[in-house]
Amino acid sequence: MAKKSLRLVPLGGLGEVGKNMMTVEYGSNILIIDTGIMFPENDMLGIDYIIPDFDYLLDKGDRVRGIVVTHGHEDHTGAIRHVLEEIQAPIYATPLTRGLLEVKLSRGGILKQADLKTIQAGDQVQVGPFAIEFFHVCHSVPDGVGLGITTPAGLIVHSGDYKFDHTPVDGWPTDFGKLAEFGARGILALLADSTNADEPGWTPSEAVIDPAFDQVFRQAPGRILIGSFASLISRMQQTANASTRHDRVMAFVGTSMVENSMIARKLGYLEVPQGLIVSLDQALEMPPSKVVLMCTGTQGEPSSILGRLSTGTNRRFGIQPGDTVVLSSHPIPGNEEMIHRTINSLFHQGAEVIYDAIAPVHVSGHASQEEMKMLLQLTKPEYLIPIHGELRHLKQHAALAREIGIPSDHIAVVENGTVIEFLDGDMKIGERVPGGYVFVDGSSVGDVGPRVLREREALARDGFVVVHLSLDCQTGTLQGEPEIVSKGFVFVRDAEELFEHARTLIREITSHKGGIDLKKRIQKELADYFYNEIKRRPMVFVFISETR
Amino acid sequence: MAKKSLRLVPLGGLGEVGKNMMTVEYGSNILIIDTGIMFPENDMLGIDYIIPDFDYLLDKGDRVRGIVVTHGHEDHTGAIRHVLEEIQAPIYATPLTRGLLEVKLSRGGILKQADLKTIQAGDQVQVGPFAIEFFHVCHSVPDGVGLGITTPAGLIVHSGDYKFDHTPVDGWPTDFGKLAEFGARGILALLADSTNADEPGWTPSEAVIDPAFDQVFRQAPGRILIGSFASLISRMQQTANASTRHDRVMAFVGTSMVENSMIARKLGYLEVPQGLIVSLDQALEMPPSKVVLMCTGTQGEPSSILGRLSTGTNRRFGIQPGDTVVLSSHPIPGNEEMIHRTINSLFHQGAEVIYDAIAPVHVSGHASQEEMKMLLQLTKPEYLIPIHGELRHLKQHAALAREIGIPSDHIAVVENGTVIEFLDGDMKIGERVPGGYVFVDGSSVGDVGPRVLREREALARDGFVVVHLSLDCQTGTLQGEPEIVSKGFVFVRDAEELFEHARTLIREITSHKGGIDLKKRIQKELADYFYNEIKRRPMVFVFISETR
Repeated sequence: MAKKSLRLVPLGGLGEVGKNMMTVEYGSNILIIDTGIMFPENDMLGIDYIIPDFDYLLDKGDRVRGIVVTHGHEDHTGAIRHVLEEIQAPIYATPLTRGLLEVKLSRGGILKQADLKTIQAGDQVQVGPFAIEFFHVCHSVPDGVGLGITTPAGLIVHSGDYKFDHTPVDGWPTDFGKLAEFGARGILALLADSTNADEPGWTPSEAVIDPAFDQVFRQAPGRILIGSFASLISRMQQTANASTRHDRVMAFVGTSMVENSMIARKLGYLEVPQGLIVSLDQALEMPPSKVVLMCTGTQGEPSSILGRLSTGTNRRFGIQPGDTVVLSSHPIPGNEEMIHRTINSLFHQGAEVIYDAIAPVHVSGHASQEEMKMLLQLTKPEYLIPIHGELRHLKQHAALAREIGIPSDHIAVVENGTVIEFLDGDMKIGERVPGGYVFVDGSSVGDVGPRVLREREALARDGFVVVHLSLDCQTGTLQGEPEIVSKGFVFVRDAEELFEHARTLIREITSHKGGIDLKKRIQKELADYFYNEIKRRPMVFVFISETR
Repeated sequence: MAKKSLRLVPLGGLGEVGKNMMTVEYGSNILIIDTGIMFPENDMLGIDYIIPDFDYLLDKGDRVRGIVVTHGHEDHTGAIRHVLEEIQAPIYATPLTRGLLEVKLSRGGILKQADLKTIQAGDQVQVGPFAIEFFHVCHSVPDGVGLGITTPAGLIVHSGDYKFDHTPVDGWPTDFGKLAEFGARGILALLADSTNADEPGWTPSEAVIDPAFDQVFRQAPGRILIGSFASLISRMQQTANASTRHDRVMAFVGTSMVENSMIARKLGYLEVPQGLIVSLDQALEMPPSKVVLMCTGTQGEPSSILGRLSTGTNRRFGIQPGDTVVLSSHPIPGNEEMIHRTINSLFHQGAEVIYDAIAPVHVSGHASQEEMKMLLQLTKPEYLIPIHGELRHLKQHAALAREIGIPSDHIAVVENGTVIEFLDGDMKIGERVPGGYVFVDGSSVGDVGPRVLREREALARDGFVVVHLSLDCQTGTLQGEPEIVSKGFVFVRDAEELFEHARTLIREITSHKGGIDLKKRIQKELADYFYNEIKRRPMVFVFISETR
C-alpha cells in the first residue's frame, strides 16, 4: 500500500493565501482551519462579501474531523454559517472566539445545530489523527491562538494572526516558550502570518497608545469620540482606562460595538470599574468634557456611526463644537479614499480629528519583519509556508527567510488552491484544486460571477437606453412615436435633442425594409450614434411590438 | 470711493484647495493660477476626469489679464483646453511646462488660438496690476516655479508644488535666496503647498534613488522594467544614468512616456549619451541583461503597459523569466488596491517586483513638515493660506504654523469657492462663490451630475430588469408571454425559475383589472418580489403595448 502523505490546502481564490480557510489532510481525515470572509474590492460592484470556494470539500464532508477557528475576526469567522450548511463537524475555539461565533450563528438561526467546543490556550485536543496543541498569540482581538499540530507525517505549526507584543493590554504575551519547545521538538513545516512582511522593524506594542490617548484626553475641551474596530477589545480596555484616569464616563455606540463589549465584559475580557459605562442617552445628558463615546465606522462606511456623523445624518446626535474624534484604527487597503473623505467631512462639521498619520493612536496587530525573523529563529522549521498575505507579502516573507538561512527549495510560496504535500519529510507542490471567490450578493451565494460583474461595470460606466416601438404587422410601418428610457447615461432633461435625433434615426431605419434583423439594426445604429455624439457606450435594448 | 480689496479665490469643489485653479483679483483685474484636472474617485462611476467649476469667471472673461501655469502636471495643466474655450488670455509658463501644454493644446486642435508666453525662473512679468516674479522650485517634474506677486495690496507668495531638495537630479535647488528676499521685503500672505502636511521630517532627496537603482541594476539577471510617471523627467534621467553606469540600453514604452521623453530631450531637460536610447523593437532584439524598458502604468491602470503586462495582454512583449519590474512611484490615493493587484499579478507572471515599500526607489515631490516650517521661517508671512491639500492637510499645515508662532487668526483654512479678502493689510473671509466639480464623461462636459451618478450606482449594485408585454386593447388580456430582459442583476442561465415566477406574477397582476396604473403595479410588485426572493433591488421598467 502506498504511503500516505500529509496535504495542506489553502482555499480562497485570489484572496490572501490560507487566510480565510485552509485544510490539513492525512489519509481520509480533514481538519479545517478558519472559516472567514473577504471584503469585496472597489470594482466588485454590488457584492456584499466573498466566501472561499470550498466546493472541493463538498464530497468529502464525512472526512472532516473538526474545524478550528484561530481568533474572532471576520476574515476567520465570517463564513462559519456557509460552511456549516454543507459540513457537519465540531468547532474548536477559545471562549471569546466562541462568543463571537455564537452571535453570528444565532443571527443565521443555526446556533443549535453547531457543535461548539471551548478550548483554552495550553489545551491539547485530538482530532482524528491530529493532536492539536493550542498556544496563545497576541493580536488585535484577544484570545487568539496558534496551533501545533502533530500529524503522522510530523509537526506542523500554524502561527495564526500574531504579533510579538511584550506589553499587551491584557498582560498576556505570545507564548514564546511553547514556540521554542516546538522548535526543540523539531518542526516539519511552519505556516506563518505574512501580512506585514514589507514593514521593517518590530510592530509597536499596544502600550504606546496609552500616552497618546492621555495627551488627547488632556487637551480635548469637549466630548471625545473614539472610532475603532468592534472586535478590538483591547482598545475598548484602553479607552476605559483612559476615561477612568481622566474622570470621564464612556458609552458604546453602534450595534456591533455594543454587542461585542457586552460579550467581552460577560466573559471577563473587558474589565471596567462600576459606573464607568453609561448608556448613550445618559452620556448625551452629561457635560461634554465628561464624556467618551466609542463608535464604529473607522473605514468610512457611510452607514456607520462615524460615517453618519461626517455627513450630518446621524439621528441621535451630531458633531458639536469642541468634539474631538480619534480614529484609533488603520485603513483596510482599498478604503483609503472613503476614510480620507470621512476625516475631511468630520473636520468640515467642526470636529478636531486625530488619526494614525498624526499621532500614535493605533498599532498593527501583525508582526513586522524582525518579529517574523524571531519566529523563524525560535521555531527553526524544516520548511516554511508563508500564509496570510497577498503574493507580494509571501514573496517578501520568503526573502526574509532566505536571509536567515532557509534554502529557497524549503520555502513554498503558493496561491490558494495549490496542494502542498509532505511525504517522508520531503515537500512537494501538488496539483491545483479548482476554486476561487464565491460572491455573496443579497441572499444569494455564488450566482454573481464575472459575467454579471462585467454587465454591472458597463452599466456603471455609461448606463443604458431602452427603446420600445410598435410596428404595423401588415405594412411594417412605425405606429406612433418610439419610446426611449435611459438611466445612468445622460441627464435626460438636458438631452432632449439627443433623443429627438435618436427617434428620427429610428424612424429612418424602420422605413428601410429588409436587410438584417430590425432590432439588431436599431441597436447597432443607436449605439454608434450615441458614441459619435458624446463618446459614451450605453447598453442599448430594443423592444418591438407588432400591432394589427 | 471705496478702497479696493485684493481677493483670492480657490476653485475646484471638494478637490484639494486651490490645487487645480485659483484666482488673484484686484479691482477689475483677474489673474488665473493653474488650470488643472482632478481624477475621479472610485465611486464616481464612469467619469473620465473632473475640471474645476469656473462658471464664476464666465461673465468676467474680459477682466482676465493672464493665466500662469506653475508646472507641467495634469492637476495644473489638464483643463487648459476647457478654460481657453471660455476665456482668452495670455498663458505664462516655463519652457518645459509650455512644451507639455502644447501637446495638450495640439490634441485639442486649439494650439494656434493659444497665446503662449515663455517665462524663465528669475523673470519678472507685469500682468495688469500684478508684478509677477517667477522663482524656481524643485518638484517631481522639472522647471516648476513659485510666484511672488506684488499687488497694490501687498506681496503675495505662492509656493507652487515644491520640495526643498538640496541634491536634485537637475542640480537646480529651490530658490531659497529669493524666498528669503521676499521675506525681507515683507510678505502679506503666503499660499503654500500642504500635500505632505502629515509627513514628519524632511522629504528625502531624489539623490537617494541612485544607490537604490544601482543595487537593482547590479542584481537583475535579465531585463529591467522601470515604471514611473511620464512627467517625472528626473526619473528618466536617473534611469538613463544608471543604464549608462551598468552598460544597458534604454527604451521608452507607452505613448506618454515616448512623447514626454522627446519633448524633454528636445528642450534639454533630459541629457543622454549617444546610443543609449533605442527603440522598443531594438531593445527586444538585445540580450535581456543589456536592456532597460521605461514604462507607463504605476497606478495599476489596466490599459497601461504595466497593467497589460500584469494580465499578460500586452501585444508586443510579455513578462519573461528573469525580468525585474521596479515601480518607481507612489500610489495616488484611491489607487492602492489596483496597484497591489498589479504587483501581485506581475509576481504571478514570474517577474521580480520592487516597489517603494521594500526599497527606496521613489521619493515624494512635496515638502514634509520640516520643510514646510523652513518655508515659513524663510518667508515670515503676515498671513498663511494653506493650499494644495485636502481639508485634513490644511488643518495640519495650520497646526505647524501655529507651532512656530503664526497666530490662528492669521491663518485661513478655507474650502474651494471661499473668497479671501485683504483690505488695509487685514484678512477677511468673504462670501462663497458657487461652484463645485464639473465631470467630464466622454465628450460631454458637465452633464453628468449627482442624479446620473446615483442611477449608475444603483445599476452597479443590482442591475436592472425590463419587462415588455402586450395587452389586447379591447379586453386588456395579456397576449403571448411577457418578455423579460435583465443585466447586472442575476446570472440569467441560473435564474430561469425566478423569471418564470416573475412571469406568473405578471399574468396574475394583468388579470386583475382596475386599481392604479398597471405599469406601476407591475413595477412595484416585481421589485418587491425580487427583493423578497434574493434581497436585491434592481431597477425595474415595464413597457406595455396595446394590440388590436
